[in-house]
Amino acid sequence: KQIILLPGDGIGKEIMESAKYVLNTVASEFGHRFTFHSHAIGGDAIDQYGTPLPDDTINACEQADAILLGAVGGKKWEALPGNIRPEQGLLGIRKKLGLFANLRPIQGFAPLLHASPLKEEVVNGSDILIIRELTGGLYFGKPSERIKNGKAVVDTLYYERSEMERIVEKAFESARLRRKHLTSVDKANVLESSRLWREVVNEKSKEYPDVTVEHMLVDAGAMKLITAPTQFDVIVTENLFGDILSDEASVLTGSLGMLPSASIRSDGVGLYEPVHGSAPDIAGKGIANPLGMILSAALMLRHSLQMEEEANEIEEAVRACLEQGYHTADLSVKNGKQVGTKEMTEAVVENIT
Amino acid sequence: KQIILLPGDGIGKEIMESAKYVLNTVASEFGHRFTFHSHAIGGDAIDQYGTPLPDDTINACEQADAILLGAVGGKKWEALPGNIRPEQGLLGIRKKLGLFANLRPIQGFAPLLHASPLKEEVVNGSDILIIRELTGGLYFGKPSERIKNGKAVVDTLYYERSEMERIVEKAFESARLRRKHLTSVDKANVLESSRLWREVVNEKSKEYPDVTVEHMLVDAGAMKLITAPTQFDVIVTENLFGDILSDEASVLTGSLGMLPSASIRSDGVGLYEPVHGSAPDIAGKGIANPLGMILSAALMLRHSLQMEEEANEIEEAVRACLEQGYHTADLSVKNGKQVGTKEMTEAVVENIT
Ligand SMILES: CC(C)[C@H](C(=O)O)[C@@H](O)C(=O)O
Ligand SMILES: CC(C)[C@H](C(=O)O)[C@@H](O)C(=O)O
Repeated sequence: KQIILLPGDGIGKEIMESAKYVLNTVASEFGHRFTFHSHAIGGDAIDQYGTPLPDDTINACEQADAILLGAVGGKKWEALPGNIRPEQGLLGIRKKLGLFANLRPIQGFAPLLHASPLKEEVVNGSDILIIRELTGGLYFGKPSERIKNGKAVVDTLYYERSEMERIVEKAFESARLRRKHLTSVDKANVLESSRLWREVVNEKSKEYPDVTVEHMLVDAGAMKLITAPTQFDVIVTENLFGDILSDEASVLTGSLGMLPSASIRSDGVGLYEPVHGSAPDIAGKGIANPLGMILSAALMLRHSLQMEEEANEIEEAVRACLEQGYHTADLSVKNGKQVGTKEMTEAVVENIT
Repeated sequence: KQIILLPGDGIGKEIMESAKYVLNTVASEFGHRFTFHSHAIGGDAIDQYGTPLPDDTINACEQADAILLGAVGGKKWEALPGNIRPEQGLLGIRKKLGLFANLRPIQGFAPLLHASPLKEEVVNGSDILIIRELTGGLYFGKPSERIKNGKAVVDTLYYERSEMERIVEKAFESARLRRKHLTSVDKANVLESSRLWREVVNEKSKEYPDVTVEHMLVDAGAMKLITAPTQFDVIVTENLFGDILSDEASVLTGSLGMLPSASIRSDGVGLYEPVHGSAPDIAGKGIANPLGMILSAALMLRHSLQMEEEANEIEEAVRACLEQGYHTADLSVKNGKQVGTKEMTEAVVENIT
């Protein structure tokens, strides 16, 4: 299987090494063969090629079975004009490859839950899958420009009905594999696009009579994620609402550094990246937490390579490590043992083999 | 002083009575005269006149010094078409009167803080003022319609530079009266409107060298409100981001029912309403919490009628009530005394006189 690695910026390179090591371990255990090719993206690509998304990277990704991404961005490139900023690499690859479904599973880890900003009785037991539409809406709608001689500005929230249909379908399918409860988040009391979204959800719901559907306004959703996170199963929403709510949800369990994400399309090709950023302040120090990246590799095995058992093996190894007390500097485990990136990765590998 | 009352739907009528009683008490203590006139809005107006915002209501509000609003909306009107839904009354009056600045102070009350979903050490001491732009952006931009024979849909995020300037100015002025820290929230890595917003903030900041400015992406803001709410002072943002973040922030202190809001324009005319909704399930039972409405009346005295001392008097009376243990059914106070709407209002009045 062809896997493209896009380490990107900051700690991206270090944690990508960890993911590769873990994947190779799984490969030899299960008798698979993965080939890895690295390409530039983000600030790293700007430094090397003057653009955040070189053609060579796009071409490689277009041939791949799956893509692993470390992280992009950093202070270094912040002053650059909008179109050659590191994030454009990320937005570009999502759009070019048509990776319309962003899956963000949020689940607590018992040894880490004490670090949650929420009370334990509020957060305990929460297990949410946020499905965010990733290639439409305000992120890509045109016009997006200054008008009236710079005296005004416009951005455009544009969706095709078919873009809504495919993401909503994905959400129903996912809910069916879980607790069969789907919360669709919109702002139907204000936006026409949300009213169409709601229609599409109601229409599709007829094909999934076993899934319970609830509509929720985005402002109410932002509240309920905090007051009653355990009441969610699958959440589906458009691009920008998904950006805000999934980041909000990512801090609930107290371990942002553990969270993986998948950005996929219908044929199963996908890009997998940890939710955390490039953390330039700790880059190169060997202390970065590789678990979000490793769990992203597990998601890749599950969603792009149909290797459910292998994915589970990695996820269980990560849980086992934490229970054995291993943690990186960003986490705290009671009576635990703080280790660096390499030791943490070794610990995962040992729990696999 | 001419005050227009818009009780609206659900518990709106009951809590409006409470606000009136408290205002009359303050008036007689300080020697003021308030005249009150009630008008219909929301579902109530739909039932009576077939429209959520009758001309008569608009005319009355246009003559007023200030407006108090109870709440609008309810299941009863949810199936109606978009343009005659109760919320249209609220959106309409904001736009017609040009109430561009929505102020949402979020502050905890010591006897209620134990009900917060956040750990006490996380939420304790938080005191945030969210300033939301209220008459622009995606809420009012055109086109907002189905296109391509219903196969696609568009909403428009439109802002004039001058609309940004006036709200940003308001935010700097407010920060100056507080802890002099302003967080401007946008999505400048994606939206052109956010890039203009950031420019406007940076430009205005030169006139307020005593105020520290921080730019934050909306997704990061949604996280930080939960992980470190005490690090915010004043937050300023555009309409939709403000809708989401202010509702998110409203549940942090565990007492949504206590929160007031103000929607004002430059000449001081304003509309004041509690943050909570119309709660149709408990309407007419005499158990609704009137404190959010009463504290909204206090904001009215401060921002529209230049009665700072009188506003403080009400706010202190509310705090005193809670310390004496009085609370409504939606709140819990240790060793407290649960009372209904009327008794709660009496308790506030007693603490004033
Ligand atoms: C970097 C940024 C453009 C991106 C987004 O908003 O989609 C990020 O926040 C994310 O969620 O992956
Ligand atoms: C009712 C709705 C249109 C309104 C809004 O989104 O502005 C409400 O949520 C609010 O925040 O006052």
